[in-house]
Amino acid sequence: MAYPELQLKKSEDRRLRAGHAWIFSNEVDSGKTALTDFEPGTLVNVLGQGGKPLGTAYVNPHSLICGRVISRRSDVALDKSLIKHRLNIAAGLRERLYGKAASCRLVFGESDGLPGLIVDRFDDILAVQISTAGMDHHADAVIQALGETFRPRGIVWRNDNPIRELEGLTVSKPSIASGEVPDTVEIEESGLRFQIAPLAGQKTGWFFDQRAMRERLEHYLKPGLRVLDVYSYLGAWGLRAARQADAEVTCVDRSADALSGLEANADLNELEVATIEGDAMAVLKTLRQEEEKFDLVIVDPPALIKRRKDAKQGRQAYRQLNQAALQVLEKNGILVSASCSSHLAQADLIRTVQAASRHLDRSAQLLEVGGQGPDHPIHPAIPETAYLKTAFFRILPSW
Amino acid sequence: MAYPELQLKKSEDRRLRAGHAWIFSNEVDSGKTALTDFEPGTLVNVLGQGGKPLGTAYVNPHSLICGRVISRRSDVALDKSLIKHRLNIAAGLRERLYGKAASCRLVFGESDGLPGLIVDRFDDILAVQISTAGMDHHADAVIQALGETFRPRGIVWRNDNPIRELEGLTVSKPSIASGEVPDTVEIEESGLRFQIAPLAGQKTGWFFDQRAMRERLEHYLKPGLRVLDVYSYLGAWGLRAARQADAEVTCVDRSADALSGLEANADLNELEVATIEGDAMAVLKTLRQEEEKFDLVIVDPPALIKRRKDAKQGRQAYRQLNQAALQVLEKNGILVSASCSSHLAQADLIRTVQAASRHLDRSAQLLEVGGQGPDHPIHPAIPETAYLKTAFFRILPSW
Repeated sequence: MAYPELQLKKSEDRRLRAGHAWIFSNEVDSGKTALTDFEPGTLVNVLGQGGKPLGTAYVNPHSLICGRVISRRSDVALDKSLIKHRLNIAAGLRERLYGKAASCRLVFGESDGLPGLIVDRFDDILAVQISTAGMDHHADAVIQALGETFRPRGIVWRNDNPIRELEGLTVSKPSIASGEVPDTVEIEESGLRFQIAPLAGQKTGWFFDQRAMRERLEHYLKPGLRVLDVYSYLGAWGLRAARQADAEVTCVDRSADALSGLEANADLNELEVATIEGDAMAVLKTLRQEEEKFDLVIVDPPALIKRRKDAKQGRQAYRQLNQAALQVLEKNGILVSASCSSHLAQADLIRTVQAASRHLDRSAQLLEVGGQGPDHPIHPAIPETAYLKTAFFRILPSW
Repeated sequence: MAYPELQLKKSEDRRLRAGHAWIFSNEVDSGKTALTDFEPGTLVNVLGQGGKPLGTAYVNPHSLICGRVISRRSDVALDKSLIKHRLNIAAGLRERLYGKAASCRLVFGESDGLPGLIVDRFDDILAVQISTAGMDHHADAVIQALGETFRPRGIVWRNDNPIRELEGLTVSKPSIASGEVPDTVEIEESGLRFQIAPLAGQKTGWFFDQRAMRERLEHYLKPGLRVLDVYSYLGAWGLRAARQADAEVTCVDRSADALSGLEANADLNELEVATIEGDAMAVLKTLRQEEEKFDLVIVDPPALIKRRKDAKQGRQAYRQLNQAALQVLEKNGILVSASCSSHLAQADLIRTVQAASRHLDRSAQLLEVGGQGPDHPIHPAIPETAYLKTAFFRILPSW
């Protein structure tokens, strides 16, 4: 059975031909194929200039991104068999990187050929998030495919992300999709043990995306450092620093739950950290007033720019935050500054720290800059899939 | 004694105020202060709008970059004392990263507050390159400062880089600047031993800049891989791969000297690699004709775009090279693709590999992208100091 067709406007097929997977609603030739004819989640064959077939996509007429390509071939079924095939390709990469059945991000949407689907593995528990109507339509097949491919103890739905509203999907509390799910699961990262709450933690429960950058952090640690970890969450950065001999680590988070989780993780690893509950900017201001200084400061905030239209205000927030961090940094100290806003480019983050340094009459050296680890592959034709930037600076007195 | 003044044109001081260190000749207000009045290497006080002092720079009226700021203060002497102070700041970072007296890039020009100066340490030998008239003027002070700060066994001049011609400096054969310099020096990188020829090797003798990326390579190795290292030089990438159990590594370089150095390094580490002497494109073509396939291909060429005006042609060369590399890559293989051309942006390199993949009907996943290691700090206000990009891709059959 052939799928219905979705004809793109003349010369609106270039991005898809270059490998992008998204169709925007203004690119559809509505005279020939009206988007409104389709139910959300319908599979279509996309046609480019001259009726050239560009592949199979699922559509959602109610979304700005009205279609996502799932295959370069036509009439491809988004069924359990296809999902299992792609899960195996995704798992092959993670196994190569981290070993068999390691905790990691297992599926990262478009980049793994499964647009709208995110899967994290916490030991024997999977956390699943669906963000598009097209994938939601196949939610049962997703759970079955995951079950048959990975044989987890349990699977949780993390469909509590407001991004679902953009596709007209309901935002619901975390729930068990299949099997048995304990309140906490233990994962291991670089020899440290962490308790994750799959049904209650932020986002899917853990931020695997910074793992490679946290590995890089080790290069900057040395005995006796004073370290400040702002937006610490469960201590992924802070406990790594605390493991260093004689380190004095202070973790800041506004969430009491996060800090009590962090303290449990510190105990689990027989490490000690100080914690401060409060808003990052307010805490940094107080620390400055108390003339506290740190050799290494990490600022890894949640996205401060959520929508493109908030970009200007958000850039200002990054500027203030980084400037406040510099003001509690020891001479020749290291600043680790991150942004997970896809609306803030890497160059913007670097400029922000540079401007804050100049403002305080300091010279900055950018030591390295990276981003999300390889279990969050970037789709090289979809710049939007590259969201995380993490930069390491050394801040010197002005030359 | 106050330095002569160099007045910038109205609103041409913005870049300097933001932290950049370069003055271009068209930014000088020649009516007030004629560049031609200065001998190459003269120290001046730079004045911005309204006569605001912007710091001390050395000038070269014969160069497009006619001035480089050495300090934000006026009347600062570029003497042994200042150089030693900055060498100590630079050494502090390297010691923190690699331990005391480790082989590394010790000084990286502007980013270390020493524009025009590059110093590499190979065990107890220093290799020094001066690229500007302003720094060349103080060559004796540089050698003395290096001697007193690091007490090396010997120092070599590597003033054989044609970049010196841009400043009207002579390009000369490598020579001994002080002390005693053997033909080869042994350095260690991640447990591997390499013989470097300080007086004869390419550039300063070794490419420290890829070290952090070579560390990342380890994450992609697994037993039994077939690896191709194109532009292998002395085997920094290839021998790392060869250390992996049952790896079958082939190294390609057009230089017979490089390959015999590589073979000596392989022996030193009791490793085995195959070598092919020849031009990269020609060798890749032959391998393809012979239907050879590799699980992991590394292409780390010299700068294929040397001058901005060659950018278009150079991008084409990167495209051909990467496409040829993809054509000998096994299904689901890893491509490590690098560019050290400052005229090729990171986004260009990514687009190039993406376009080549699409052309061959493959899907690319960008696993990570990085650049020069932290002993080559980037000056965040001088984008030109960020020259190296290295990207790891997984190449799949088309979705």
